[in-house]
Formats: sequence, C-alpha cells, structure tokens
Amino acid sequence: MTNTQVTLIQIDNYGPWTVTPEPRREVDLQTLQSRLYADLSQLFGNRDGYVFFSRFDNMIAVTNGIGMDAHALVQESVANRYPVTLSLSVATGGTPAAALDTASTQLQDAGSAQAKDRREILRGEPVAEDRRTAEDVQVAHFDVNDATEKYTDRIGAFDTFIHIEQGYAELMRYLREAHDSLAFFVGGDNIIAVCSSLDETAYHDAIAHVREVVDVDLKVGVGRARTAQPAGMAAKHALEVCRHDGRDVVFDEP
Amino acid sequence: MTNTQVTLIQIDNYGPWTVTPEPRREVDLQTLQSRLYADLSQLFGNRDGYVFFSRFDNMIAVTNGIGMDAHALVQESVANRYPVTLSLSVATGGTPAAALDTASTQLQDAGSAQAKDRREILRGEPVAEDRRTAEDVQVAHFDVNDATEKYTDRIGAFDTFIHIEQGYAELMRYLREAHDSLAFFVGGDNIIAVCSSLDETAYHDAIAHVREVVDVDLKVGVGRARTAQPAGMAAKHALEVCRHDGRDVVFDEP
Amino acid sequence: MTNTQVTLIQIDNYGPWTVTPEPRREVDLQTLQSRLYADLSQLFGNRDGYVFFSRFDNMIAVTNGIGMDAHALVQESVANRYPVTLSLSVATGGTPAAALDTASTQLQDAGSAQAKDRREILRGEPVAEDRRTAEDVQVAHFDVNDATEKYTDRIGAFDTFIHIEQGYAELMRYLREAHDSLAFFVGGDNIIAVCSSLDETAYHDAIAHVREVVDVDLKVGVGRARTAQPAGMAAKHALEVCRHDGRDVVFDEP
Amino acid sequence: MTNTQVTLIQIDNYGPWTVTPEPRREVDLQTLQSRLYADLSQLFGNRDGYVFFSRFDNMIAVTNGIGMDAHALVQESVANRYPVTLSLSVATGGTPAAALDTASTQLQDAGSAQAKDRREILRGEPVAEDRRTAEDVQVAHFDVNDATEKYTDRIGAFDTFIHIEQGYAELMRYLREAHDSLAFFVGGDNIIAVCSSLDETAYHDAIAHVREVVDVDLKVGVGRARTAQPAGMAAKHALEVCRHDGRDVVFDEP
Repeated sequence: MTNTQVTLIQIDNYGPWTVTPEPRREVDLQTLQSRLYADLSQLFGNRDGYVFFSRFDNMIAVTNGIGMDAHALVQESVANRYPVTLSLSVATGGTPAAALDTASTQLQDAGSAQAKDRREILRGEPVAEDRRTAEDVQVAHFDVNDATEKYTDRIGAFDTFIHIEQGYAELMRYLREAHDSLAFFVGGDNIIAVCSSLDETAYHDAIAHVREVVDVDLKVGVGRARTAQPAGMAAKHALEVCRHDGRDVVFDEP
Repeated sequence: MTNTQVTLIQIDNYGPWTVTPEPRREVDLQTLQSRLYADLSQLFGNRDGYVFFSRFDNMIAVTNGIGMDAHALVQESVANRYPVTLSLSVATGGTPAAALDTASTQLQDAGSAQAKDRREILRGEPVAEDRRTAEDVQVAHFDVNDATEKYTDRIGAFDTFIHIEQGYAELMRYLREAHDSLAFFVGGDNIIAVCSSLDETAYHDAIAHVREVVDVDLKVGVGRARTAQPAGMAAKHALEVCRHDGRDVVFDEP
Repeated sequence: MTNTQVTLIQIDNYGPWTVTPEPRREVDLQTLQSRLYADLSQLFGNRDGYVFFSRFDNMIAVTNGIGMDAHALVQESVANRYPVTLSLSVATGGTPAAALDTASTQLQDAGSAQAKDRREILRGEPVAEDRRTAEDVQVAHFDVNDATEKYTDRIGAFDTFIHIEQGYAELMRYLREAHDSLAFFVGGDNIIAVCSSLDETAYHDAIAHVREVVDVDLKVGVGRARTAQPAGMAAKHALEVCRHDGRDVVFDEP
Repeated sequence: MTNTQVTLIQIDNYGPWTVTPEPRREVDLQTLQSRLYADLSQLFGNRDGYVFFSRFDNMIAVTNGIGMDAHALVQESVANRYPVTLSLSVATGGTPAAALDTASTQLQDAGSAQAKDRREILRGEPVAEDRRTAEDVQVAHFDVNDATEKYTDRIGAFDTFIHIEQGYAELMRYLREAHDSLAFFVGGDNIIAVCSSLDETAYHDAIAHVREVVDVDLKVGVGRARTAQPAGMAAKHALEVCRHDGRDVVFDEP
C-alpha cells in the first residue's frame, strides 16, 4: 500500500483568457506558464512536495505532509503575482491514480475549468496525520539507457526527442493502466513516476513492455518515504547505483 | 518552399552536472530548467523568434531574422545569470527537419553533449539577408476539439493528459516522417508545428491519421510569414476561425 | 525587549565576479540581483521571515522561527540555480542592530567578502526555542503622507524620488543611532523598520525628527508578533488605520 | 550637449492595489516588484536601454534607440504576465532631468497615478532618428573607494549600508541640483548616473562635495555613446582604469 496525497492544480478559465480579447503572444504565454510552474515547484518543493508540469494549465503535485493552510497560502501567493488564479483540489488514495481521480471529481463538481465564475476553488483534505507512515510515497525515477551516446550525440535532435517522447507516451499509459501509477516527463531523458506499491518484478515488466513496443531501453531507481522529496531523492540515488553497476532496477527503500 | 532557420540550444554537460557531486534536488532542477526556458522564450521572442522547450536540456528555436550577434548575446546573458552554459547551433534548410539535422550535426562535430571541455559553442549561419522572403516560416497551431468539455471537465486529469499526450506523440512522429516538420506540445491541449510548405490536404491527412491511430480529434490554424512570431500569430487567428465556423483546417496566409 | 533573529546574507566574492574576466553587462547583473532577492523573499517568506534587499549583494533578513537546516536548504537551492553562492550568518540580540552586529562579526571572522576561498559560510544560531515569545519581533511600517497627491502627481518623478530618498536616509540613520533599529526602503513611499521595543513617543519623535531635518511627513503602523510575517501584517493593518483616522502612529499589538 | 531619451515607467494604481481588499503579503509584493524590474531590465536591456528601479512603482529608463512600438510591446508583455499594468511616458531633452520632467508632466496630464481608470497610458516620442548622434548618452559609474576593506569586512553590515546610503542620497541631490543629472543606486557600492555633458572638473567637484558633506570617498568612470548600454559599458571600463591606476575620475569617451 501507498498513501499518496495528490493535488490537482488548475489555472482558472485559462483557455478563454489566452485568446481574450484576442490571442495573446505565444512567447508571453510560454513565459507565464513555465514561470508559474517554477514558482509552484518552489512553493510545494520547500514543503517536501513535488509538482509536475504535465499540461501546464493542469499540473499535478504530490503533497503528502502539506496541509490546507499551506495550499491556501500558495493560492494567495499566485493570485498576488500573476494575472491568473488557481484552483486546488486535494485527495488521497491507496493508489496515486485513485487519489487523482478523486481530486479531479471534486474540482469538476465545483464547475467547469472554463467557467468564468469558478475561481480559486480549494477542496479536499490531506492525509490524516495519524494515518501517515514512512512508506506513504513511492517514487520511481527512470531514464533512457545511454541516451547521450546513442541519441543526442549521434542522431538529429528531433529524432532523439521522438524516441524519448515515444518511450514516455508508452510508459505513462502502461503504468496508468497496469498499476494506477502516474508517470511524468521531467526533462532530458528522465521520467519520474509516483507509484502504487510496486515490486521489482513490476518494474522489470514495465521496462520490458516499453522496450518491446517502442524499442526504448529504460532503467529505474525506486525510493520510498513519508513525503515526495526524500522518496524522490532516494530514487535518484538508486538510479545512480543502476548507472554504476549496470542493473535495470534498483530499490533504495528504508 | 519554406526557409526555416532553426537554432538548437543545448545546455552544456547538463546530465553530469545534475548528479555532481551527488544528485541535486529535483525541485531546483525543475525550477532552473523552466526559468531558463522562460528566459530564452523572452530573449528570442523579443526578436520575433519562437523557442520550444522539447527536452528542456535540448531546446529548439525558430530564429529567422536573428543573427549570430544576437545569438552570442543570448549565450552571454545566460552565462551571466545561470550556473550552466549553453551551446547554440544555427542552420537553415528547405524543411525544418533538414535545418535541425544540420544544426545537430554541427554541434555533434564540436564534441559530446557531455564533454566537460565543450562549452558555449556557437556555430552555423543565419539565412542570408537577400534570400529571405515573406513566406519563410509556416507555423501550424493545433488543438484538441472540445478538450475541456470532453476530457478536462469529465474524466480524470491524468486520463485527459494521456489522451493529449498520445495525440501529440502520434502527430509529432507523423509530421516528422511524412513532412520533415517539427511539432511541439506547448501546454493545455495545444501543439505548435513548424512546417515545410504544407497545403490544406496535408493537414487534413495529418488530422485524419491522428484520429485513426489514437482517436484524438484535432483542428489546426496555419500562418506564414518572414519570421516565427507573426506566422504563429496568424496561425492563432486562423485557429480562432476554426473555433467559430467549425472547420478543421484554416489558413491565414498573406 | 525584543528578541530579533537576524540573518546576514552575503553573495560570496560578488564584486570581483562582476568584473571578471571583464565587466559583465549591467542589465544582467540587475536581473541577477533582483531575481535572487525575489527568490530569497519567497524562500524566507514562506517560512514567516522577511528579507530586505538593502545593498543586494548584502541582504538582511529577519528570521525568527527559521532554523539552521532551513538556512542550509536556502543556501543549497541558490547554489543549484545561480552562478553565485551565498554565505549566511545568523544571530539574535536584544535589539535588531545588536543582532546584526553579531552576525556581521561572525561572517567577517570567516574571511573577507571578497576572498576567493570563503564560500557558503553558514554560522550562528537561531533563538533557542524555549526563549521565544509572542513579542519577539516589532515591525514598523512607515509611509509618506499624501505622497501621490503632493509629489507623484505634481512634481517630476526624480524630485519625488529625492524627497522619499532623503526621508529614508534620515530615518534609517536616526533609528539606528537612537534606537538600535533597522529601517529599509521597500518601494513606493514605504519604509519597513525592524525595531527594538519602541513606544508611541519614540515613533512620534522619529517622525518629528525627519520632518524637521528633511521636511518629509511620515506616518507609521506598528505590529508585534513571534515572527516577522504576522508582525509585518499587523503593522500594515495599523497603517491602514492611520490612513483612515488621520493619526500618525498606530499600534496593532497583541 | 547630451540628448538623453528617458522613459518614466509607472505601475498603474499600484498603491491602492497593494491594500485591496486588504493589505497583501509583503513577501509577495517584494517578489512582484523585483521580478517586474528584472523583466523590464531585460526587455529594455535587450534593446540597448538601461532601467533603474528607483522606487519600483515608478521606474526610470534610458531608452535612446527604442521606439514607441517597442514600448508598446513591453507594455503588452507585462500586461500578459502580471496582475498589474504599466503606463509609459517617453521624452527627450538637453539634460536627463529636463527629459524626465517632460515625461512626468505628460503622464500627470493623463490622470493620477492612483486613478482607477487611467491604465496603460503610452505617451511621448523618441528622439528623431536624424537628430541622433554618437554622443547622446553620458553614463557615469561611481563606486565607493575601498568599500569592502573599509566597511564590509570591518564594521557592521547596517553601518556600512548607512555610509553608502548617505553617499548616494547626497550625490543624487547634488547631481540633480547642480547638473540636471539623474543618479541611481544599483546595488553593492555602485551608483550609476545619467548625466548631461559633464567634464572632468564637474566630476571632481561632485566627488569632493560628497566627501565633504558625508565623508564618503567616491571614484567614477565615464562613458558616452549613442545608447545607454555601450555608454554604460564604457563607463565600467573607465572605472576599472580608476581601480588600477588610482585616479578618481576616468573618461572612456569615443
């Protein structure tokens, strides 16, 4: 079992805003989105959470240990500094996907993502303090084997990108369908997944599946902790072990 | 014919840096990457270019009208403000993919992306001034039909993301293979492609292909200009026309 | 008595860096400095602290409630994202000036601000937990009476700025000399001071002094709390009361 | 003669916004202000201009070579990314102070800085192209002699700051009154002044005046060019010459 707390972060009425009164300059939208993500990354990251940019207008955070007051403060801080506002929906579940489904439903119940009058919703509740354990969050950090040697330094930059993107698209779908887990591309050749309690075999199977379907070779380090940040750092250390001893799957669990 | 000028932007020796002396905190890496992208978006965007984050450690820009001096200044500005440096490789070609292949080769010839002593490379050359025309850049702005109504407001946030991601992964591969064109996810349900000179049929075929393979319905606005920014803005206006009259493909070319 | 905890934040070897190998572009230095300050403002602000930019290469923070681990994390986060590093020196004292003097000495003892090999110093200690009280920090928020009506909307922008600057220069000197308190210009016509335990008469005297010497009329709201953020917010509310009832000095203390 | 083009940048209705519906958190205001300044520094700086933060809600830029279209684009870019908007007023004059006075009047004529309905004013005109010369902008870069050795490494951080601040307050007033020139503190122990055409004697007198009144020793490098950026860079190089040969005033003019 894991006990992942997930926060769905949605920019209120963003689509319409981007084209009102007429389409806004793309460079400004890109700047706005990526800086908002950077800020959220710090705001949640300084409280031991992880945020993934996913679609940028809908971001997904792992927020074990972060209460509703801190969520409200993040919401207020963004409203004070951006031309847009955020709605936040918090939920927990036995699997990350179940938690996010609950969070999604809560937010949908509050109104459409493109409703003018649905602003700064803050719903849901964090994991109860007395139910929290040192194993609540499992993070898996994947990368592509020899990405620089095989791709970046050898084939065109876009073809490299296609390989990595196909690997990601397949892995995200597989982990969601097979294991109710959520995988996110985080740059370079790296994918970070927030998983339900998967064992070594499950990771070997996932890697084999991706190799078979899209011919991309992955390896993975896995960590586990009370919150996202130490779980993710453990996963990084485990991935370093993969790099040094050639294994495909390494666990660094307490 | 198009005459796209492309710049490959690569963070020097980034992979090793992220784990030296030991893995750096993911939240800081995410902040660094997304802010660097935001800055580049402004630096090139203020000179009528477009930058796409693609892998974040390797970004791709459309830079018609931007000379080597301006590239050098971008490089210097980043070195003055970040703990990492950038290499830039500039190339042009009859298709965007051809241009990027040249840019990739130029950079690979200068050394590995993970070589310690390969820093701040600046190679290539911009489109000759007397060969520039008002039709050099074709930009296509796609989005997913009724994404909010069909997905965001109805199914889980991750399942929505999977749909959009599968649509993107398929479109990027198709446009690259069929038309030497480069498509980038830019957030929300939006994909921006820098294309070789495609006609309406080609866009209808692309949309049909994506619908068939992954069951995602796209529409597209297409613009064309001397540089990326006005071509992209024309594409956005064309996409607004799609939204209002229900067509799948609209051109807003001069 | 107050029990202010102060952190002196110093960019390591910054002066030499700005001119090595030759002078760096001023626009980049300005961007670097102001963004670094913005980040520190968030990093400490999210932990109920206040940071003042003062000289930008030497910043001063009020950090009651923020331990050495959090300081170390701030230091690490900056090193991960900037081309420069920070030294931090933490101290407490019966007056803010006394605390800062201790912090200054601790850092000077570690080496020169422009020594190449003095990097990322982290010294001092926070207020002991069992000695913390609800009255540890007194914040005074000053502004200039009718600044917009009398200056901004009527005389030249620089002459307005001169008035405000002379008011600030006089107030900072007076509060330091008369009361061991630290005043910082924070933009607009606002000055925030971290004070030793001053009473209403002391504030009236300070306002009278500034009026006499440089003919600038100030008013002030004063707040007090366990940490900087709620003390500062109380001060803002008190200043709003000044604005509404015309008083020059209003306390909003628990 | 100089021919300085100055832009007054004013955040629209900022004071009221900061306290509506109630006082906003100071850390967010500080972050907003300093990031806005950083962005403007890049936006104008990439077009060879200089921006000074001065009061943050009223900033002053030297914008020779930057036309009204570029000003409009800066205005639009900020509106797209911030919760506040900017008014811009452009003017030129034989002295920097005269130019800024014109810019101030133009903006005051458009309405109060705190009028709700006065938003995104864009007024004035740039230097006519055919009147521009290679000597239009004179920039003087001052710093404090031996600031690190005499102050930073020896006395308390706030007392150092007081010295520098008193030096700045005196210099700004003197240069304004004696020479219609505009001086700005830019961090560390640095002051940058945009001057009318001053000769060596004038700078020696300014330095002597500041030494006499507040006992702060300055030196200065002076540059001159068609726009702010190369004039400022020449001034920096001249200041480096001061540092090496011990002179108080060095010119690096074409």
